[in-house]
Amino acid sequence: MQLDFTYYNPTTIHFGKNSLTNLNDELTQYGDTVLLMYGRNAIKSNGLYDQVMTILAETGKKVIELSGVMPNPTYEKMMEGAKLVREHNVSLILAVGGGSVIDCAKGVSVSAYCEGQDPFQKYWVEHQEITNKIVPVASILTMVGTGSEMNGGSVITHEESKYKVGRAFPAKVFPKFSILNPEYTFTVSQYQMVSGVFDTMSHLMEQYFSDQGANTTDYLIEGLLKSSIDNLRIALKKPNDYEARSNLMWNATLALNTMTGLSKTQDWQVHMIEHQLGAYTDCAHGMGLAAISLPYYRLVYKFGVEKFVRFATQVWGISAEGKNPDQIALEGIAALEHFTNECGIVTSLQELGATKEMLPKIAKSTTIIGKGYKKLTDKDVLEILEACF
Amino acid sequence: MQLDFTYYNPTTIHFGKNSLTNLNDELTQYGDTVLLMYGRNAIKSNGLYDQVMTILAETGKKVIELSGVMPNPTYEKMMEGAKLVREHNVSLILAVGGGSVIDCAKGVSVSAYCEGQDPFQKYWVEHQEITNKIVPVASILTMVGTGSEMNGGSVITHEESKYKVGRAFPAKVFPKFSILNPEYTFTVSQYQMVSGVFDTMSHLMEQYFSDQGANTTDYLIEGLLKSSIDNLRIALKKPNDYEARSNLMWNATLALNTMTGLSKTQDWQVHMIEHQLGAYTDCAHGMGLAAISLPYYRLVYKFGVEKFVRFATQVWGISAEGKNPDQIALEGIAALEHFTNECGIVTSLQELGATKEMLPKIAKSTTIIGKGYKKLTDKDVLEILEACF
Repeated sequence: MQLDFTYYNPTTIHFGKNSLTNLNDELTQYGDTVLLMYGRNAIKSNGLYDQVMTILAETGKKVIELSGVMPNPTYEKMMEGAKLVREHNVSLILAVGGGSVIDCAKGVSVSAYCEGQDPFQKYWVEHQEITNKIVPVASILTMVGTGSEMNGGSVITHEESKYKVGRAFPAKVFPKFSILNPEYTFTVSQYQMVSGVFDTMSHLMEQYFSDQGANTTDYLIEGLLKSSIDNLRIALKKPNDYEARSNLMWNATLALNTMTGLSKTQDWQVHMIEHQLGAYTDCAHGMGLAAISLPYYRLVYKFGVEKFVRFATQVWGISAEGKNPDQIALEGIAALEHFTNECGIVTSLQELGATKEMLPKIAKSTTIIGKGYKKLTDKDVLEILEACF
Repeated sequence: MQLDFTYYNPTTIHFGKNSLTNLNDELTQYGDTVLLMYGRNAIKSNGLYDQVMTILAETGKKVIELSGVMPNPTYEKMMEGAKLVREHNVSLILAVGGGSVIDCAKGVSVSAYCEGQDPFQKYWVEHQEITNKIVPVASILTMVGTGSEMNGGSVITHEESKYKVGRAFPAKVFPKFSILNPEYTFTVSQYQMVSGVFDTMSHLMEQYFSDQGANTTDYLIEGLLKSSIDNLRIALKKPNDYEARSNLMWNATLALNTMTGLSKTQDWQVHMIEHQLGAYTDCAHGMGLAAISLPYYRLVYKFGVEKFVRFATQVWGISAEGKNPDQIALEGIAALEHFTNECGIVTSLQELGATKEMLPKIAKSTTIIGKGYKKLTDKDVLEILEACF
């Protein structure tokens, strides 16, 4: 706990089977016009769309809809939403879906009244402070992974320039409230569930593997990693196990609600590589992260071996007896690999849609952060990508 | 994660060596008159009082002082503060000290403008909703344990009736901001440090030992318990170890900022017994908790043996091999007892100031909650007290 920090997270979380009953009360806090954002047809086929529309009608809201928000939401979609906000003087943006829809909703919020400069350039590329008016965002979460329901994260893909970039906005952009009913995640496919859990685990590991020693944040991360592992095993056998699905849902929120990054330098190099992989292939985010994580951690572990030893012993229960630190550390990474295989995680870039020709382009366009155990070179990134091809 | 919950914690935490530098900015959010509450002379001898007064002067605040807030703050002290708030139209109550000062500050906040009924009766005994105006509270923490810096907890002792009672107020009573500099805790005596850490651990255990199974909250609690154990061991050897003291400080905040109680029924029976012990003896809160915990857990473990097995294996690293659940559970409680001895925790009620004659009175006045593994009888409570006499 060596770094000073400020922690402030004002999102209200309504969690559980009956959490949607809080929507009426929450809506009374906002004005008349709601922009309802969602993805494709999932929320229509499972009945959630109708439930939400009923509550919006009951509370007398005028509803503007923006559907078709895609995984890896695009700049174009965000600008479409921004235009709707201005045209209809929207008072609340309600995102119903997974992280992509919520990320896009935050993008719409900060972009709608951005003047004088393109918002993508201003906020995502140049990381400028938000001085324009923003519109409150709220969410009803249907997919687990990104943690966007309780943070300021917003990842937007600029298709023309093949640039997928994330920004962690300050607390005023966090969802005002988020409704988390684990039952909404029952209809998510096994592939997407596993991908979401690996996204959670990657968030935890990228915060964990970023300094020496072990502070309170590391102990919390170890607990959340173990809960993710144990509960994914249960959910793979019994997809409708309410307890397991609810633990996976809450793990994902806590994994990136800024608490698990406190006092940590944080790495995010795996996410940076995956963002470019995603920009070229549109692969499931968690699968891309898993593919990259294994060669990445095998490359960098030597520079943070003490933490990798902790990871092996505390998270995977590996015995240290009679082994040197390198052996223990590598056994921890092997345990992670074994777990990805056990859960059917796809770690081959071909299967994720990449071609050999893409790899140098992905490597070249990856942002090198240098906050982890080793500052990568372009050659390192290419080697990592080739290792999972 | 079987219980639905709403989570909302709007306290801003400024943590670290330079955290006091945030005070100026925070003060600009509030009006002109600050009620500065503190305990005895500790903050004058370590220089913190002068630093805070300088910043208050720089920001042009008129300062009213209320000193002498005691451990187990009294109804009388709270009413003294309430009178000052009304007389001087106070805009912010700034508590500088440990949990007692912050608890008392919250009491002052809700009591100052309470009309028509005695506030202790209305808010602590009858748990009525707060409808009167409240005054914002903020804190600068100098002692670790209660978690009052990031929650609505306020324990007040009514001396005349020997009644010490706590209330968890809603989010509007939480401190608006809290400044946590681990260095302020360096001058706390070893006795008080250890007492504070056991208070933290008791908060964690009273939330943990309250249902079957293990959800994400339990994994977090196990992590925070391990961090408390590991870091107290370091701090006992090296009291000025910044990392250890900062981990202990942040553990205490997280142990009772409501997150570690989510989806748990929660017990709090140990606290209920200790509150009455404290009302009769004025003993250090954490020491009283430790004394009561050991016989209490030995009495109730049979009714929640699965969770006590988890406690033994996950928190204390006890091997389950070749043992039955009862053996493992009892080894976990024995490990806790061994740890209290190792850290010099006082678990004899005589040493904590109790007399044999007090025990039936303490037992009789204890509130039985019945949310833990076994609903105690008056006889059970007396037996627990006698076991630690």
